[in-house]
Amino acid sequence: MKAFNDLADFSNEEIASLIALADRLDKNPEPEALKGKVLSLLFLSPSLRTLASFQAAMTRLGGGSFVISPEMSIHGIESRPGIVMDGAAAEHIREAIPVIASYGDAIGIRAFAERKSLEADMQEKEFRALTDLVDTPYINMESAMNHPCQSLADWKTMNDLSVPANGGKFVLSWAYHPRPLPLAVPTATLHMAAKRGMDVTVLRPEGFELPEALMQKAAAAAEASGGSVRETAQRTEAMEGAHIIYAKSWSSTRHYGDKLADEKLREQHIDWCVDEPWFANAKDECRFMHCLPVRRGVVVADEILDGPRSVVIPEARNRMLAQMAVLHQMLGN
Amino acid sequence: MKAFNDLADFSNEEIASLIALADRLDKNPEPEALKGKVLSLLFLSPSLRTLASFQAAMTRLGGGSFVISPEMSIHGIESRPGIVMDGAAAEHIREAIPVIASYGDAIGIRAFAERKSLEADMQEKEFRALTDLVDTPYINMESAMNHPCQSLADWKTMNDLSVPANGGKFVLSWAYHPRPLPLAVPTATLHMAAKRGMDVTVLRPEGFELPEALMQKAAAAAEASGGSVRETAQRTEAMEGAHIIYAKSWSSTRHYGDKLADEKLREQHIDWCVDEPWFANAKDECRFMHCLPVRRGVVVADEILDGPRSVVIPEARNRMLAQMAVLHQMLGN
Amino acid sequence: MKAFNDLADFSNEEIASLIALADRLDKNPEPEALKGKVLSLLFLSPSLRTLASFQAAMTRLGGGSFVISPEMSIHGIESRPGIVMDGAAAEHIREAIPVIASYGDAIGIRAFAERKSLEADMQEKEFRALTDLVDTPYINMESAMNHPCQSLADWKTMNDLSVPANGGKFVLSWAYHPRPLPLAVPTATLHMAAKRGMDVTVLRPEGFELPEALMQKAAAAAEASGGSVRETAQRTEAMEGAHIIYAKSWSSTRHYGDKLADEKLREQHIDWCVDEPWFANAKDECRFMHCLPVRRGVVVADEILDGPRSVVIPEARNRMLAQMAVLHQMLGN
Repeated sequence: MKAFNDLADFSNEEIASLIALADRLDKNPEPEALKGKVLSLLFLSPSLRTLASFQAAMTRLGGGSFVISPEMSIHGIESRPGIVMDGAAAEHIREAIPVIASYGDAIGIRAFAERKSLEADMQEKEFRALTDLVDTPYINMESAMNHPCQSLADWKTMNDLSVPANGGKFVLSWAYHPRPLPLAVPTATLHMAAKRGMDVTVLRPEGFELPEALMQKAAAAAEASGGSVRETAQRTEAMEGAHIIYAKSWSSTRHYGDKLADEKLREQHIDWCVDEPWFANAKDECRFMHCLPVRRGVVVADEILDGPRSVVIPEARNRMLAQMAVLHQMLGN
Repeated sequence: MKAFNDLADFSNEEIASLIALADRLDKNPEPEALKGKVLSLLFLSPSLRTLASFQAAMTRLGGGSFVISPEMSIHGIESRPGIVMDGAAAEHIREAIPVIASYGDAIGIRAFAERKSLEADMQEKEFRALTDLVDTPYINMESAMNHPCQSLADWKTMNDLSVPANGGKFVLSWAYHPRPLPLAVPTATLHMAAKRGMDVTVLRPEGFELPEALMQKAAAAAEASGGSVRETAQRTEAMEGAHIIYAKSWSSTRHYGDKLADEKLREQHIDWCVDEPWFANAKDECRFMHCLPVRRGVVVADEILDGPRSVVIPEARNRMLAQMAVLHQMLGN
Repeated sequence: MKAFNDLADFSNEEIASLIALADRLDKNPEPEALKGKVLSLLFLSPSLRTLASFQAAMTRLGGGSFVISPEMSIHGIESRPGIVMDGAAAEHIREAIPVIASYGDAIGIRAFAERKSLEADMQEKEFRALTDLVDTPYINMESAMNHPCQSLADWKTMNDLSVPANGGKFVLSWAYHPRPLPLAVPTATLHMAAKRGMDVTVLRPEGFELPEALMQKAAAAAEASGGSVRETAQRTEAMEGAHIIYAKSWSSTRHYGDKLADEKLREQHIDWCVDEPWFANAKDECRFMHCLPVRRGVVVADEILDGPRSVVIPEARNRMLAQMAVLHQMLGN
């Protein structure tokens, strides 16, 4: 495995095999599997779960990792091409990335979207500019439009809960949040559930449609797996018979990169906070998923997070197990 | 061992056995004992010794650790229950703690006292709210009123120096400090020395009495072990025949949580800085202990810290060894 | 090996043997060599390469490390001797260093020059004050006037490239930089190339002469190895037949510690940016070396860094390999 960049690069059989490996490593630890192996972890954006779970994963497999973030360098890291570096930054990403990568057997990179141009972000221009500098295998730890580690963990979480693939009803719902958030998790989640063969409904207010090209990519994945994809702004209809509601806020695609217009539109939907009434016509056993961190009382009510519907803690633990499987395949003998 | 939260939870025999294990691991390393095991380290308060010694301890036993502190999360971690999270914090402790714990085989947690209410702090309300969220074994890395890792290291340090248990005279002395400091170390130290069976004198100015309930808990522990506990403001009397002076500043219990009143009272005792004259009627071999960090020329004179009485460096090294023993018992097979 | 502080402490045979060990560990990993061993890493100055490469090195050899920097302590670390610590700093280096060292089997220390007095910095007063507090073996991770890990990596890099020792022509060139930088890398590099037996030219504007005592030390090393040392301000003459140009900015030695005078002098040489015309009369295969981080368009042109002359990435990777060899000899059985 040269890269773990997009779940779309793997067949459903390969994903099943990764998840089986994650389950096996959970039950039968292999503390010598990656003996002496090093994972470089480069965080150009903040992290808690990803930071902790990758370090834990490498330790459990007998290897280790180190963490680099821009504030460790003298006065930050420059990323603009062709620039005369006479300002604050003392180092350019063109040196920093290959050097950091050269100390590891693989590198994990996190870099959030620039969020100036939806098109540029959808093309993953920034993230590709980084991975192009890397010779070792790499792992996408969240880019502008992807978060494959989260998606693999989410897929495993639904398997753990015996949520049906074909015939399973998955609602990906927008939620209110005081800030405009990246599209990485919603677009990755949309594709993951579609690829798993589920009937996926994207529930969101007008102005928060997911990008057409990504809806189409998901629809194609759904079709290949026997599922379907649609979107709506009608909550009651969307939740009908749902097995899963996956809540996540994201910024307006209509006003992408325009903070003020985004805020104005977002503030009209402050009532999009998942609480028990949302589940009125869902399956009795309908579960609540979220990638975390989550804002209590804003994205979701305490009663849901603290009640039996929530699976956010085992879902987060699956991050570690899913990544152990990826690392085992990528770096093991 | 499900928790290492309070030395009072362990019999003197169990403590002796932990210290024997620490000695053994010092002489005969076991670099495979915790192969592939992970310790989560959550610091809600700053640290240097604890941070370093726990990481070193896990490496020496063949495992590993990862460190999380609030500034790593996006905009900090919220801890107030029932709050609508529409402010800066993007994550609540109710998710952060169980997630972080789920990546480890055990978790160490440090959270200083809130220092608003002495009663609430004595009940360890804040720390218990955190450990209640944890399913794995946990280690108290300093809470409002406890610091069991320090106490186990201190006990071992006195064993290393052949300081007698019964008949050993232990002076826990308040010292001046420009800031009001937590009660964790003094109250833990008081109990440790009493439980070890020593004759313990708490030496402090009026207004800095340790809480009555903790004095009584220590007195009961002393009685069970053949020791005694008393307090005084008279230095000469207190130091008579002392084997150990353990210096530590702490905030006024009379003005707990009242910074101004505390400061006013504290500033009257700027002369409480341990120097050689303090030892006039102590045992010749009387040693100086301190948990570190210590302010030179404020809490203790350079001549003491740099002279033969000071055991603060081996005492600090014993932190690592004591924690190795705890981790070995907690996570070993 | 009790200390890795200065390449001058080692014979050329010992250096050859360290480099051979680095090569061997690159080809045949030894993930059990330092099982359970701990390296303490103390950074009193910022770092990226050193931070990452030492952590990776210890993991590859089966051990581990922990990182301490001043901001982790409560309100920073005091270093002035004899001071009454009633200000912000809660801990003194006299406790912090021995404690941190006591948790490891060896300690790496980085502390940049004070840059007030050239004489004091040349005597390594500050760094020696730190290492005097350490009982374990230690590694110089960059001091006022030395950077032996960089030099060992640079030596290995030239071996990898088959750059001749005797008869090899090495140009150490000053370059423009918006800030006055330490002398550690240029003085260490000068000595390294001389000791390797090369013909070394220090190319720098007037006012940026390297200290006379260090030039003489390098000349003695060169003589013993069959090389030579000279300095000039004439670029064309300096580059004649060069195998290597090693660029690095450093502060004016004429105005050492005088920021304004240094800046005034430096700004006259903003054209000292290495680009292709510099190589006009060098060897065809002349390579560009730099310790990184490097400012693009200021110290060196993009065309050089991105072209075939640059070896800065493998040079940086050799940091890890060189340090693995040092650690293996220092801590292995």
